[in-house]
Amino acid sequence: MLGNFMYSNPTRLYFGENAVSFLAGELKNYGPKVMLTYGGGSIKRNGVYDDVIAALKEAGKEVFEDPGVMSNPTVDKLYEGCKIARENNVDLILAVGGGSTIDYAKAVSVSAWCSEDPWDKYYLRMEAPDNRIIPVGSVLTMVGTGSEMNGGSVITNPAQKLKIGHVFGDNVMPKFSILNPRYTFTVPKYQMVAGIYDIFNHICEQYFSGTDDSASDYIAEGLMKCVVNASRAAVKDPENYEARSNLMWCATWALNTLIAKGKTTDWEVHMIGQAVGAYTNATHGMTLAAVSLPYYRHILPYGEAKFARFAKEVWGVRTDTMTAREAAEAGLAALEGWMREIGVVMNTKDLGVTEEMLGGIADATFLLGGGYKKLTKEEVVDILRESLNA
Amino acid sequence: MLGNFMYSNPTRLYFGENAVSFLAGELKNYGPKVMLTYGGGSIKRNGVYDDVIAALKEAGKEVFEDPGVMSNPTVDKLYEGCKIARENNVDLILAVGGGSTIDYAKAVSVSAWCSEDPWDKYYLRMEAPDNRIIPVGSVLTMVGTGSEMNGGSVITNPAQKLKIGHVFGDNVMPKFSILNPRYTFTVPKYQMVAGIYDIFNHICEQYFSGTDDSASDYIAEGLMKCVVNASRAAVKDPENYEARSNLMWCATWALNTLIAKGKTTDWEVHMIGQAVGAYTNATHGMTLAAVSLPYYRHILPYGEAKFARFAKEVWGVRTDTMTAREAAEAGLAALEGWMREIGVVMNTKDLGVTEEMLGGIADATFLLGGGYKKLTKEEVVDILRESLNA
Repeated sequence: MLGNFMYSNPTRLYFGENAVSFLAGELKNYGPKVMLTYGGGSIKRNGVYDDVIAALKEAGKEVFEDPGVMSNPTVDKLYEGCKIARENNVDLILAVGGGSTIDYAKAVSVSAWCSEDPWDKYYLRMEAPDNRIIPVGSVLTMVGTGSEMNGGSVITNPAQKLKIGHVFGDNVMPKFSILNPRYTFTVPKYQMVAGIYDIFNHICEQYFSGTDDSASDYIAEGLMKCVVNASRAAVKDPENYEARSNLMWCATWALNTLIAKGKTTDWEVHMIGQAVGAYTNATHGMTLAAVSLPYYRHILPYGEAKFARFAKEVWGVRTDTMTAREAAEAGLAALEGWMREIGVVMNTKDLGVTEEMLGGIADATFLLGGGYKKLTKEEVVDILRESLNA
Repeated sequence: MLGNFMYSNPTRLYFGENAVSFLAGELKNYGPKVMLTYGGGSIKRNGVYDDVIAALKEAGKEVFEDPGVMSNPTVDKLYEGCKIARENNVDLILAVGGGSTIDYAKAVSVSAWCSEDPWDKYYLRMEAPDNRIIPVGSVLTMVGTGSEMNGGSVITNPAQKLKIGHVFGDNVMPKFSILNPRYTFTVPKYQMVAGIYDIFNHICEQYFSGTDDSASDYIAEGLMKCVVNASRAAVKDPENYEARSNLMWCATWALNTLIAKGKTTDWEVHMIGQAVGAYTNATHGMTLAAVSLPYYRHILPYGEAKFARFAKEVWGVRTDTMTAREAAEAGLAALEGWMREIGVVMNTKDLGVTEEMLGGIADATFLLGGGYKKLTKEEVVDILRESLNA
């Protein structure tokens, strides 16, 4: 652990089957006007909406509804939310949903009182907020992004063909989040598995970088093992509470900054996957799954020791009689076996990618260089071609 | 992960060789009067005091010194600190030292404005604070207790022969902590090794309990592996920055509530070790080391599966051809090998315990029952007898 860093995660988490019973108490810490932000209405079908409204009533709040947050929240929706927040001078934004809804709530929280166009200031220019920030609380219904305990907020501008994520500081993180694993039981299996791979890959992105001995990597290994184990149980039985609770908790800790502390990180799989997503509108976690193995196999020679460690520590491969290269490859073989087992998408063809798109996707891919090898555009094309028919 | 819980750790951490450079910036968030709390003066010899004074000056603070915090801070010292804090109406208590100094600073923070005897209210009756709390910041110079990011505060009342730890909520946790691994280089080797075992045992106390599949246990395993690896490097070369930084970070995360979330915990080694400490005044970590193996061997039959998992996941023992019992025993054998290797005290005789003390120590031991077997007083005596001449 060689890097200098600051760690601050003030989000208060309530976890478990009874977590929502603490919502009314938390609400008492804020003024009377609450903006209730949610997505397409699935929370009205599964009872979560009723639980939340009951708590809002108990706390005596005046509620301003802001439904219809889409999976990739747009800047137009942001402007709409800002208007509701500002005109009603709300004291709290309560986001009920998954990462998109919470990301959007954070965007409104910094943008509502911004005197210029928030898209320019907070997304194009990535400035730190200097205006009034409306506090955000969340009730999580889908796991993966970690938005419930981080400052991340991704907003899409369809007119400009831009999707930008700003990771704000701890003053924008949710003040509290309600995490009830049962709320995730009704997520369809495809989305659940995509979410599981998203969690796993968040950990990989922070793990496959750096060569120093770092506490963060040991914690990452623990989380990866837990995700793998819980995923098997959850795929078998999506209503396995123990498994869903472990997945929910791992998702939060996979991306709340902890396991990136003191080290460099990669994030190239996300860069390629997001570019694939921009061309296909495919489910985020599946885009990551489809490009991961070609990417990792490509960079393996540059990070052999870490991939060999991954084999031994995460997958329990007996590496002592292997060369480092053999061990590293065995780690990726184990990863592949697990991916096929839980049923993620293994190639980009199944997501709608065609040979003709490869150049464009490669152009849209940011080349970060935090991993074991900074890719060239040509290498991205090679990786994309491999993942087309993998 | 089956339990319901709340998680909140608002402490802002600055970590690394340059961490103290952020102190002046943090100080600006508080009023002009700062109480500077520290121990016996080693910080004046190793340069830490000068670093801190420079930051206080840079931030334009008026400083009220409160030196002389002893390793087991007493209630009389607490009254003295409260007087300084109250009479000068300080805005912040800045604790510079190890766990004792930070524990004491938290005690002053809740006690200074308490209208009755704080010993009665906050330690004997363990009440939650309902008076003004003075914020605390810390500059850590010794690792082990995790006091830099938790609400724990242990105070000793010598007249009443009582040493009581109150774990306060997040409103009493330090607002910020400065963690510079270099500040720990000058800790004597005996204390360093005792601190390492203290960290490791904090993790064990939370790990050896419960039978459900819990993300907390996977994180615990990662931390244990990191501590073992870093300890070997630190014992070889106490100025190995990488190793000391991993130990410092693991110590914080071993006891900031994270790895206890959603599960039951044990803490019986601490109960026995603290009773040994009350009779011998031996170094805390060494009392834990001296009683651990007899305790774990005693409860092994009741928690066989977990000890077998410990062997496989923490120590890399190839357990697949072993019975659960053999695997469990192999785990403790590996633990013993590591303890001897880093040089902790392996028996209580070396700490000054005699056969005559055993009954009294057993009487002074709280029997908690959170681990795999709730001990009887007779069992504690057996364990103490085994650890006498181990």
